[in-house]
Amino acid sequence: MGKVIETTFRVRYAETDASGVVYHAHYIVWFELGRGEWFWQQDRDYHRDVEARGLNWPVVELSSRYLAPARYGDLVTVRTWFKESKSREFTLAYEVVNAATRQKLCEGWTKHLNVDAQWHVVKIPDELRELMSG
Amino acid sequence: MGKVIETTFRVRYAETDASGVVYHAHYIVWFELGRGEWFWQQDRDYHRDVEARGLNWPVVELSSRYLAPARYGDLVTVRTWFKESKSREFTLAYEVVNAATRQKLCEGWTKHLNVDAQWHVVKIPDELRELMSG
Amino acid sequence: MGKVIETTFRVRYAETDASGVVYHAHYIVWFELGRGEWFWQQDRDYHRDVEARGLNWPVVELSSRYLAPARYGDLVTVRTWFKESKSREFTLAYEVVNAATRQKLCEGWTKHLNVDAQWHVVKIPDELRELMSG
Amino acid sequence: MGKVIETTFRVRYAETDASGVVYHAHYIVWFELGRGEWFWQQDRDYHRDVEARGLNWPVVELSSRYLAPARYGDLVTVRTWFKESKSREFTLAYEVVNAATRQKLCEGWTKHLNVDAQWHVVKIPDELRELMSG
Repeated sequence: MGKVIETTFRVRYAETDASGVVYHAHYIVWFELGRGEWFWQQDRDYHRDVEARGLNWPVVELSSRYLAPARYGDLVTVRTWFKESKSREFTLAYEVVNAATRQKLCEGWTKHLNVDAQWHVVKIPDELRELMSG
Repeated sequence: MGKVIETTFRVRYAETDASGVVYHAHYIVWFELGRGEWFWQQDRDYHRDVEARGLNWPVVELSSRYLAPARYGDLVTVRTWFKESKSREFTLAYEVVNAATRQKLCEGWTKHLNVDAQWHVVKIPDELRELMSG
Repeated sequence: MGKVIETTFRVRYAETDASGVVYHAHYIVWFELGRGEWFWQQDRDYHRDVEARGLNWPVVELSSRYLAPARYGDLVTVRTWFKESKSREFTLAYEVVNAATRQKLCEGWTKHLNVDAQWHVVKIPDELRELMSG
Repeated sequence: MGKVIETTFRVRYAETDASGVVYHAHYIVWFELGRGEWFWQQDRDYHRDVEARGLNWPVVELSSRYLAPARYGDLVTVRTWFKESKSREFTLAYEVVNAATRQKLCEGWTKHLNVDAQWHVVKIPDELRELMSG
C-alpha cells in the first residue's frame, strides 16, 4: 500500500437526494477528487502530466461499498492510495470517512488503463511509474 | 416566438435533494436537454452542425424562475423555442411543465455566443441561421 | 435471470467530461434510471411502493465495468434485470448498450438492503417479493 | 452590500464537459457552496438553523452571467454576500473568480423565499434576520 493522501471537504446540498443523505453516485465523484489530490500532493497534475502528453487514464472498472450515510454539511475526508499496477493499467483504492467522527462511510477502488490519443492501450511511461512506487 | 419543441422524461432520483424535491440546478441541465431536442427535431445536431465545424455555442447568460417543485418519478416536459438573435448571439427560451397536470414548474432562458475554435466571437453561419427563423 | 427491462435515452452534454466522452459516474446514475424503469414497467413505483410504506432500498455495494465510451447525443439503452435476493437484500444487474449499434458500453450491478424508517435492516415485504421472481 | 464570504476549491473533472471547460450548470452548484459558507462563516448552519426549525429557503429565481471559462484543476473562489431582503424573501449575490489570477469567471444571484413545512411563504424569523444585516 502506497502513501495515503487525504483531502477534506463539506458535503454539498446538491449531493444529497430525497432520502435525506448523499446519493451513492457522488462517492464515485469523491473518489475522483481523492485521485486528483493523490496527483497534486505528489507534485503531479493529471492534466499537465497525463493529458498534455497525449495520454488518458479512463476508469475501466470500479467497485464501492457503502457503510454509513453522509449528510448535508458533513465534513468528509477521502483517503486515496496506490494499490497495484501492471505495465498498462493500475488500481487506486479509496476510503471515505466522516472527518469529525472518523467513521468509515464508503470504501472502493478504481482500475485505470493507460491509453494514447487514439485510445489504444499502451505502456505507462516510466516517469509516471514513480507515482506508483509510493 | 419560433416553433415550440417538446421533450418529456422522468425525474431521476439523482436529481432530487434532501428537501425532497428536484435541486434547482438540474432545471438548467433540463434546459440543455430541451436545447438538444430543439436541434434534433429540426434535423440538426449540435455536435455535427456546430462543434464539428469548429464552432461552439457557450452559454453566456441565463435566468430561471421556479414556480412549483418536481418530485422523483414525475414526468416533466421541457418546451423550448427560439427567442431572439443578433449576428453573433442568440437566445432560447424554456418552460418546464409537469407532463400530467401541465402545471408550469419553471421558466427561463439562455443566451449563447457563437465562438470559433480560438474562442473568438464570430458571426453565426447562414446555414445555421434558418434554425432561428422558426 | 429475471425479465429484462429496457429504457432508452440520449446522452446529455452535462454527462460528458473534458476527455470528450461520458464521465464514468454517470453510468451509475443510468443504472438508477434502469432500476426506476424496472419498477415502472412491472407496474410498481419506488416512491409509492417502497418509500411511502416507510422503507428504503439504499445501495450498499456496486460494481461496474467500462467497455467502450458514449458520446454526447448518442442514444443509449439501459437493460436491467433481477439477479438474486436474500430475505433482506437483493441485487439488480445492468447493461448499457449503444442503442444504434448494440455495442456494449458498460455492465454492472447494485446490491440493496431493505431498511425501515430508522434505517434498520428488515425483511423485504412479501408483496414486493414478486417483483423479484421475474 | 453585506460582508463578503469567500470559499476556494479545485475544479473537479466531473464538472467539465466535452467542450473542455466547466459546464455552466455547475456554477449554480458553486453558488450553493458559497451560500453554505456564507452561513458557516457567520456561525450559522442551513440545516440546523433553517431546516431543523421547519423552514426551507428554496431558490425561486436565479441569474448568472459567464465571463471566462474554468478548467479542470483550476483553483476557483466563490465570493458571496447578502444583497437585499423583504419580510419573506431575500437575495444573495455571487462572484466566481480564478483564485490564481483573480479573473472574474461568473457572476450571479439567487432569490430565496422563506417557506414553512407546508411550503407556505412566511416571515423570516428575527433570529435569522441578523444574518442579513451584514
